[in-house]
This record gives sequence, C-alpha cells and structure tokens, in this order.
Amino acid sequence: MFDRIDHVGIAVAEIDSALALYGDSFGMELVHREVLAEHGIEAALLEAGETHVELLAPFSADNDIGRFLASRGPGLHHIAYGVSDIDAALAELREREVQLIDEEPRAGLRSSRIAFVHPRATGGVLTELVEAARA
Amino acid sequence: MFDRIDHVGIAVAEIDSALALYGDSFGMELVHREVLAEHGIEAALLEAGETHVELLAPFSADNDIGRFLASRGPGLHHIAYGVSDIDAALAELREREVQLIDEEPRAGLRSSRIAFVHPRATGGVLTELVEAARA
Repeated sequence: MFDRIDHVGIAVAEIDSALALYGDSFGMELVHREVLAEHGIEAALLEAGETHVELLAPFSADNDIGRFLASRGPGLHHIAYGVSDIDAALAELREREVQLIDEEPRAGLRSSRIAFVHPRATGGVLTELVEAARA
Repeated sequence: MFDRIDHVGIAVAEIDSALALYGDSFGMELVHREVLAEHGIEAALLEAGETHVELLAPFSADNDIGRFLASRGPGLHHIAYGVSDIDAALAELREREVQLIDEEPRAGLRSSRIAFVHPRATGGVLTELVEAARA
C-alpha cells in the first residue's frame, strides 16, 4: 500500500529558529514553506533525499499543533506514507475497517492530496497518507 | 549529509499485537526481528519501500522504551536518517558542534552501524544515524 515514508511531521514552537537549527546542525535545506491559514499553522519542508521533515508551528495555542506543544512539548508529531493513488488506498483502508479522520482526500502541501488515519487505528501514532501532485 | 529517512522508531507495549495491527491495517510486512538483550528490548522492522517502521517493545519497565511508555504512552519514539558513511557524518556533526549521545558508531539492527544525536541538539527529537551493512 505504501511506497515509502514520505515525511515525518515535527511540532516546533517557531519555524525560523527550527529551520536555522536543522540547517546549522544537519545542513538540511528548505524546499517549501507554506502558511495553512485555515489550520492556524505554518509548515516548512526540509529535504532528505526523496523523504522530508515537515516542521509545523502554530500561530496560536488554540489549534492542534498549539495544543500538542502545550501538552507534550516540541517533538515528533506524525508519520506520513507516500501512496501513488490515495483514493485506492483509502478504499482499501475502509475495506480493512481502519478508522479514518479524513474519509476523503483533502489538499496538502505543494498541491498534494492527503488524508489522516485515526491514531486509535495505529496504536497511538497519528498517520497520514500523501499522494504527491502529478508533475 | 542524509540520504533519506531510513526509519521511524515507534514504542509499543508488545511486539506481536503491534505487528498484527500494522499487518491487518496497512498490509506492512515484517522484514526483520531482533532481541537487543543488552537494551532489554525487542525490535521489529516493517517495510515501506526503501524506508522502514521500527517497532520497539521493552522486556521490563526499567529501560528507555519502558520509561518512554510509562511517561508518554505508545507512539513515535525517534527518527533515523540513512547515511552512506557514518564516520564522516559524525565527524561533520562534531565539527558543527552538535551534541551527540554516541561519539562513535555502535552496532544496530541487521549489522548496521548507528549513532544517536542528543535531543537537546534537535529541539527535542531523538535522532539516529544509520549506515546500512554493505551487501
């Protein structure tokens, strides 16, 4: 079902200092940055070959990332798997009776299509599927 | 410095039920299983293309994974990046004054060589480098 780990999402208090840290420590390069206004967060993608780290920072304490930071502090937030056909993957998950957060794909970063699986279905791990935009 | 995300480590209470969950939900296949007696844990690798999920379960509450489960519950534990030359990568990290847990590589799963970077150097994310065994 999964082609690879597409990215790992990491909650951070503030994007610019996290970008500086990942650049200075690991030489990881920023490849994309996007404000997700409806979710109240800013996201930045750092490159590691075909895989990515996705830094997520909240604009306020009153959203998913803000609440995550308040309760657990900065750190690993979710894992995302790349799929070639997210509609087919979601159909297969429904057939397997896997509990989903998103029954239908929605817009992700860089015109990707994404959907989240419920952590209850994965032993506590927030899990995302990503179908990259076609070139 | 990093070729890709090699794997994501996930702390679980017990390996067999976690393997069943990942198999039943996502069709992910077990590719390796190993008892790390000196660390008091069992590890299992599940395949997602060139990347992996590493399930980690403790034999007792008195080790890193047991303490992690007691304080945070099951979930994302660490991120591991693949490198082609771990000695060169560690030398570069030392030059960048990045705080390391392992100053020298040690044995990992499947005859790999691994080293951990201190979470203090990464904004709270336990980070591992992995050099795969040469074929």
